[in-house]
This record gives sequence, structure tokens and C-alpha cells, in this order.
Amino acid sequence: MIKFEGFDFVPNGVCAPKDFLASGIHVGIKANSSPDKKDLALIYSRKPCTAAAVYTQNQVKGAPIAICKQNLQNKTAQAVIVNSGNANTCNADGEQKAQMMCDLAAEALGIDPKDVIVSSTGVIGKIMPIEPIQQHIKELAAALNEHGNTDAAEAIMTTDTVSKEVAVTFDLGGVPCTIGGMAKGSGMIHPNMATMLCFITTDVAIKPDLLQSALTRVVDDTFNMVSIDGDTSTNDTCAIMASGTAGNPIIDTMNGPEFQKFVDGLYIVLMNLSRKIAADGEGATKLLECTVSGAVNIQNAKRIAKGVITSTLFKCAMFGEDANWGRILCAIGYSQADLNIDQVEVILYSKAGSILVCQHGSGVAFSEELAAEILKEDEIKIIVNLKDGDGEAIAWGCDLTYDYVKINGDYRT
Amino acid sequence: MIKFEGFDFVPNGVCAPKDFLASGIHVGIKANSSPDKKDLALIYSRKPCTAAAVYTQNQVKGAPIAICKQNLQNKTAQAVIVNSGNANTCNADGEQKAQMMCDLAAEALGIDPKDVIVSSTGVIGKIMPIEPIQQHIKELAAALNEHGNTDAAEAIMTTDTVSKEVAVTFDLGGVPCTIGGMAKGSGMIHPNMATMLCFITTDVAIKPDLLQSALTRVVDDTFNMVSIDGDTSTNDTCAIMASGTAGNPIIDTMNGPEFQKFVDGLYIVLMNLSRKIAADGEGATKLLECTVSGAVNIQNAKRIAKGVITSTLFKCAMFGEDANWGRILCAIGYSQADLNIDQVEVILYSKAGSILVCQHGSGVAFSEELAAEILKEDEIKIIVNLKDGDGEAIAWGCDLTYDYVKINGDYRT
Repeated sequence: MIKFEGFDFVPNGVCAPKDFLASGIHVGIKANSSPDKKDLALIYSRKPCTAAAVYTQNQVKGAPIAICKQNLQNKTAQAVIVNSGNANTCNADGEQKAQMMCDLAAEALGIDPKDVIVSSTGVIGKIMPIEPIQQHIKELAAALNEHGNTDAAEAIMTTDTVSKEVAVTFDLGGVPCTIGGMAKGSGMIHPNMATMLCFITTDVAIKPDLLQSALTRVVDDTFNMVSIDGDTSTNDTCAIMASGTAGNPIIDTMNGPEFQKFVDGLYIVLMNLSRKIAADGEGATKLLECTVSGAVNIQNAKRIAKGVITSTLFKCAMFGEDANWGRILCAIGYSQADLNIDQVEVILYSKAGSILVCQHGSGVAFSEELAAEILKEDEIKIIVNLKDGDGEAIAWGCDLTYDYVKINGDYRT
Repeated sequence: MIKFEGFDFVPNGVCAPKDFLASGIHVGIKANSSPDKKDLALIYSRKPCTAAAVYTQNQVKGAPIAICKQNLQNKTAQAVIVNSGNANTCNADGEQKAQMMCDLAAEALGIDPKDVIVSSTGVIGKIMPIEPIQQHIKELAAALNEHGNTDAAEAIMTTDTVSKEVAVTFDLGGVPCTIGGMAKGSGMIHPNMATMLCFITTDVAIKPDLLQSALTRVVDDTFNMVSIDGDTSTNDTCAIMASGTAGNPIIDTMNGPEFQKFVDGLYIVLMNLSRKIAADGEGATKLLECTVSGAVNIQNAKRIAKGVITSTLFKCAMFGEDANWGRILCAIGYSQADLNIDQVEVILYSKAGSILVCQHGSGVAFSEELAAEILKEDEIKIIVNLKDGDGEAIAWGCDLTYDYVKINGDYRT
């Protein structure tokens, strides 16, 4: 159970923790893109950081992931460079270009190229132009500042309509600590292992292996429980840099309350970024949150929660504000979880109210008027109780709309 | 390898084999439905048949499936009754209503209720009204005739825009034999084990266990390779009745050419129905056919073929007639098949021409003008060669369009 007490939200995203700077500018990665669209981001820590990352499980991996993995073998990093507009994936010269991005960032910052995390997002299979980065890397480095977090968050957006940032502060052994993060969605989102792009900064002092464990554990309960369209991207990356500058006694065991508190803080940041990504799914008008309880175990709860928010038909029904709960039952049924369908209970909930639509696996009478009121809201909760055990899970998704089709019918141009 | 020689397409769908009659009428299962919309179908064989069926793997199963399974325990059937407009699923009185449908059909036909195959399709979770069936069952039975196949095929349609029928004749040991079929799509289509609704008739004489083997084998390569939206329905049923009235020497071994020829004929019928279902997917403007060769084995080929035609993003690109082949590679990558991505070759093909878009896993230059011409057609083939073995498979799907969202945003009313 996550404890939410003792955490406060603060502004400044990835710049919220001590000694982190960021910047984001337009360099023209995508031909004919608007000069207003920032497309190159940099995050820099004044001190070398312990670093960890998780990546996509897609067998087709973006070239930046190969270089990023090499660079993080030493578990240290000091900067992140990311572009939008081109995924640098399925190109014969991909790794060479990703390496050049690290070299350029390292030279501009005066650090080792091996301490650079590199990432790309955008169209797959187009040759990545390195010239815009060569021409503008010094400008990008010069723009680094303590309030550059939103510029950086904007520079990694593709079809996202809003930038996504979260930061929290909390106390570790009497020392104030901070975790900040930024992420981008918003299509090809069905993370498996890691996710879309997400970069986390923290000033907490923590041993490298524990940082990796915390990240893997929290990503599993947050980003891996988000789905926009069932497509697992080739470039999903979630990386974290921990500078240790907060001055807390270094977290060196999983068994103390400090590790648990760090995990809780990380959960709050990643869970909120997950919700932002789901709410801003391509074309989305509604955030869907499915909470499953009473499952035989957590794995079963996860399968069902994710099955419901992934169902194309249910997503369309939510767009149409139609309480077609039969599609929830259908999705529960094909989710390959162990369950006793005759015990399933389903409630639809929003700030306009709640209705019980299904009990003992069968429909119950409900007011269509109230259902319509509930489904008009832009955040809908689907509460499933399997009454069969203690397993719980939450998954986040969005409705499927005309605009999703429009956005993806002609994405390359 | 399927041999296509020696088979001729013939008209009359499920009435094409000897001694099969069919009918379809409007009885008003769905409140306020148009009197023009037929919603109750009957298929009748003058002689008792050997019968077999495969059903959905969704754990939430329509009540008619439970009754149908009971009735087919004796491996004989003489009639099929099916309604559209209500799935009779997730209702407390579902099995009772499905049994009543069998009783009513049996009484009207003067046969045993245990020899009736029953099926329903439509909204999940609404109480099934039995009165319209009680009132009209005699009319339905009286309407049975040797050209009633299209009435029956129309009566099982939900959001389908066209009825789907196929029949072929062939020669078994000097005796002309026929297989006929009808099916309905067109949403909640991602069959796993069986599919949507499909009813097959044949006058071939064949032992019950061999009939079941042939059906299971062919469904695996046809309906189970179709996906419209990734949603596996609760009511998928594919049933076959074999009357033996053709007079061929009964097929009693898998090892002779007769069994293989029967399987080939069944493949042709089911494959063509599969293509019709994919082409008429909800809102679809294009049939997508993905052929995978060079896979390590057939299972891997199937995963990849199905992964490609299931990708929401690729489906949108096809609607937009955008040769965004990176999404094909992405889908190949997350299909959980064994493959060497550096050898993958992808060709896009239609009757307007073909283009190689990817070789050795990386993009190759191609004419966007020619690509646009190719993708304008209403049937697009995606040809993937993995160059890694002998495994081959074909899967069928359709594009994702505004109309899919429209149809499913408000399905219940």
C-alpha cells in the first residue's frame, strides 16, 4: 500500500530537485515544422548522478536505446538529450546518429559522452538529420536554467496537446528531498516494461541497484498500467538520475522506511504522469481509470484492469457516453485472468455520481439518465470487484475518438 | 498447402448442399427496430446431421453457448436457430431463454430439442425478449425453402453492411459434394478458437470426430486469423452440420485424400467468409491481408501476421492511405515472435502495383506517388518476409475509421 501522507506537490518538474537545469528549443528535426515547436531537450545535473532506466520490450528497438544502455552500464549519468520529430528507429545509421547526439551534448557540457542518456521520439524509419542538432547544440546548452523544465517538457511532445510534469517533496531522515519528472505520450502507448519517454530527476542519495529496483517496481504499477492504443512503441524509455545533493544518509537497504518512502514518492510522480498521459491520449476526451479489487492475486487484477481500459469497443462507448457495461464484462472475460464471473460487480463512477450496473455477473436496472450525467464528465472511474481474493490494481486509459483516427491517418506529413 | 483446383463456387450459401432449407424474418427482438431488419434465422436439414462446433474462448460466454454445447454432446443436429439484436449474455435468465428457443424451434419443426443449435448476437446484458420468437416461430418454420439462404444470412447481421455467404462444390470419389456457409461480423471481432457467428452446411458423409477435427483445424487458419478490433466476443460460434446425403463413401480416416479434400473445401469456404468479415469490419473502407513467410515456424508467422493487422496505428495509417511502414515494423517487434529483425523485408501490394518499403530491417527509398496509388485501392496486401525459416501464415483485418468510432459510440440505441 502506498502512503500518500508526507508528500507535497511542488512546481518546476525536472528542475525541482537541487542542482538540475533544463532547456528546450526548436532546431528543425522535422522538415517544415513550425519554428514554435520545440524539438530538442536537455536536462543537466551539476553533479554526476546515479542513474537507472527501463526500456521498451518491443523487439524492434530505437537506435538510441542501444546507445543509452551502453552508457548506463556504469550506472552514472549527468545529462539527458532528447529530440522529438524523428524516432531514429529502423534506420541503417541509427546507432551512429544516436552516438553523435551523445558526443555533441557531452562536448557542449564538458562531460564524458558515456554520462549522457539519449532518446528520440517521432516517425519510425526516416533518416535522422543530425545537422540541426550540430548547429544548435551550443544554443541548447547555453539555454540551460533552473526554470527550463517546461521548455524541456514541451520539446519532447509529439501529438501531445499538453506538456506533462510532476514534482513532489518529502522528508528523508530530517532532510528535505525532491523527485521531479517529465513525460510525453500520446500515441503508440501500451508500455511493456518501460514506457513512452519519461525522465525523472531526484536529489536523493541512493545506491544504484536500489534506484533500479525502485524504478522497475514503480514503472510496473504506473506506466505499464497505461494504454492508449495497444501499440507498444519501439522507443519507450524511462530514465532516472539521482544526484544525492539533498544530503540524506544514502539509502543502502530495501528493508528500511527510507527506501519505502522513496518508492512511494516515485509512485506519486509516475502515477500522476501516467494519468496525464492517459488523459492526453491521442484524440482523447476522457480519462478512464479502472480499479479492480477482489482478484485472486495482483497479476489477475492487473490483467483485468488493463483489459478493460484497452477494449476498443468500451473506449468507443465512453466517447459516446453510453453506459454499455456489457463491453466491460466482455473485456473481463477475454483478459485471461482467473475469475468467477458469477460474482463480478461493476460500478461506473465520476464526480456526477455513481451507478451499479452489474452484480453477480448479470445486469441490474439503473437510471439511464444518471448514467448519462456520470459519463458526461471528463474523468470516468470503472470500479470492478471480483469478490474472489485480495488482488488489487489500477489501470489508466482514454476514450477512442474521431480525432484519434484523424491524427493517425496521416501522421508522417 | 491447400489445393484450390477441383473446387467451384456455387450460389445459395447454406442451401447449396442437398436437402438444406433456410429462412429469415423480422420478429422484433430489439425494441423499435425497423420491420425491414430480419432478426431471426432458421436453417433446417431434411435429414439428421453429424454436427460439430467451436466456440469463443472468452470466459464470459453467451448463454446460448452453454445450451448449444449440451445439445451437441450427441454430435447430431438437424436445425439452427439464431437471433440478432440481443446477445442473451450476462442475463440471469439467459440459459432458460436459450433453452426456450430450442424448444420452440423443435416444436415447430417436429424434431428433438436436443438436435437444435442455438445462437444469439447483439447487445450484451439486456434481458432477451422471448415473446417475439414465440409469436413468430411458426411463420419462420413455414418460410423455410431451398432459396432462403440469403434471408437467413441477413437475419444474423448486426452492424454488418452486407450479408456473407459462400458455397463450393467438389468431387469426392466420383460423387458431387457441396459445402455452404454463412457468417456475420462485424465488431467485437478478434476470434480466438471460434469466431463471430458462422454456420456451415454440407451433404458430405463424414464421421463425427473427423468433422470436428476438420472444423477446428480450418477455423484456426481462417477465422482465428481475422481481427477487426481486438475484442474477442462472448458469443463466437462456428457450427457445421453434415447430412451425408451426397452419397459419398463415408470419410472415416484422416489419412486418405478424401479427408484432405474436404478440409481444403472447408478452408475455401471459411477463408472466403473470413475475408468478407474483415472487408466488412465496422466502418472499414479497406480489406488488409498480411502474408508472412520465412518465419521460424507457423506459430511465429501467425503471431506476426495477426500483430500487423491488429495494430491500431497501422490500421489508421491505411485509412489515411499513408505508407507509414514503420508501424508495421513496430507491430512485428511487439508480436512476441522469434525473429531476426535485421533480415525483415516488407512489401506493400495492391492491384495498382507494389513497393518494397523495408529491407534488412531498415527503410529503403520508395516513390510516395506510387505508394499513394497502391494504398488508394480497397484491398491492400502487406507481404512480410522474415528470411529465417519456412513458417507461413495469412491474417485479415481492416482499416480503423471515423465510422468505427461512430458506430460504437452509441451502439445500444
